[in-house]
Formats: sequence, structure tokens, C-alpha cells
Amino acid sequence: MSESVRAWRFAVNVTPKPGILDPQGRAVERSLPHLGIEGVGGVRVGRRVELTVTAADPEAARAVVDRLAGELLSNPLIEAFEIEAMGEVEPAVAGGASG
Amino acid sequence: MSESVRAWRFAVNVTPKPGILDPQGRAVERSLPHLGIEGVGGVRVGRRVELTVTAADPEAARAVVDRLAGELLSNPLIEAFEIEAMGEVEPAVAGGASG
Repeated sequence: MSESVRAWRFAVNVTPKPGILDPQGRAVERSLPHLGIEGVGGVRVGRRVELTVTAADPEAARAVVDRLAGELLSNPLIEAFEIEAMGEVEPAVAGGASG
Repeated sequence: MSESVRAWRFAVNVTPKPGILDPQGRAVERSLPHLGIEGVGGVRVGRRVELTVTAADPEAARAVVDRLAGELLSNPLIEAFEIEAMGEVEPAVAGGASG
């Protein structure tokens, strides 16, 4: 349709900050002996949010993700986030609630 | 200490399979207008699990993560996972429940 609209997919990886208690990570560690798995430690459980941003250029798209990650997707007091660019996608994907 | 022991850190990214309902993703999408954010869609919310594996070599470490991801960290009926190698780390990290 509109030729100037482009879209990019990003992932936001949200993890508990070092020193913050991570009960889900502890639960995983406690399950390991039951599976007979050894040598695994330092388990940290966070969230991964993938999303598509329609914007004029990649920098504008990334700015939207930055804001979203800091204001909605993570709690800056106890969580850190990293943004991962997953490449350009079809703009059509961005609008609809697919899935 | 023991010179033959090495450790690697991995991330397991778990996401809802295409077609599987994702209420958390919908909730994020519904929050966007309140933040004044436009052009974001296709939101999928999953988990990110980071862990350290002590093993003889990288292949053995990866095999442990493969098993863990499929048997404990994801539900294969409704979730897909991807394993991300994060590089070699100090073996000492693997043993303790740090943090």
C-alpha cells in the first residue's frame, strides 16, 4: 500500500538485576536433580518480548522500543533490559493482532 | 582449581508458537494507546532463561541446555525455544547460587 512505511522486528530481553532475588531461577535449579542434570547453575529467569514497529526509519523504530522497554516492559528498579534488532519485516505484520 | 573444568553461559528464549493465544502480548498492545505509542504490533511475550553450564567442552554444555530447554523450560505443545550461546565464563559461577 503506502510505499514509505517500513517495519522492523525487535526483541526486548528483560532480566532480574544482579543481586535481586529470582525465585523462578531458584525453582529451576531445585528441579535439576530430579531430571538428573548436573553442572548447571546461575539460573536467571526473565522475559522476552518480541514486537514489530512501523516507522519511517530504523532509528525511529528503535527509539520507540527504547521507550517501551523502559516504561512498560521492565521495572527499572529491579530489572535490566537489552534490545535486540531482529531485522526488517513486512509492514502488514505490524498492524494486525496476528496469531 | 581443576584445570579441565570449563563453563559456558547460555540463554534459552521461549516464545508462544504462532497461532497460540498470548494474553500477555494482547495486554501490552492494549496499553500502548495510554502511553501514546503508535505503530507497534505483533507483540509476543515469552521467557528468557539464562544459565551457566559446567562441562568438558562446548558441545557437551550445549547438549545439557538442549535437554533442559525441551524438558523443563518450555512446553513443547504451545511454546518454541531458541538457544543462544553467550560465551565462556568462569567455572566458579556455575556452582553457586549467586545473586
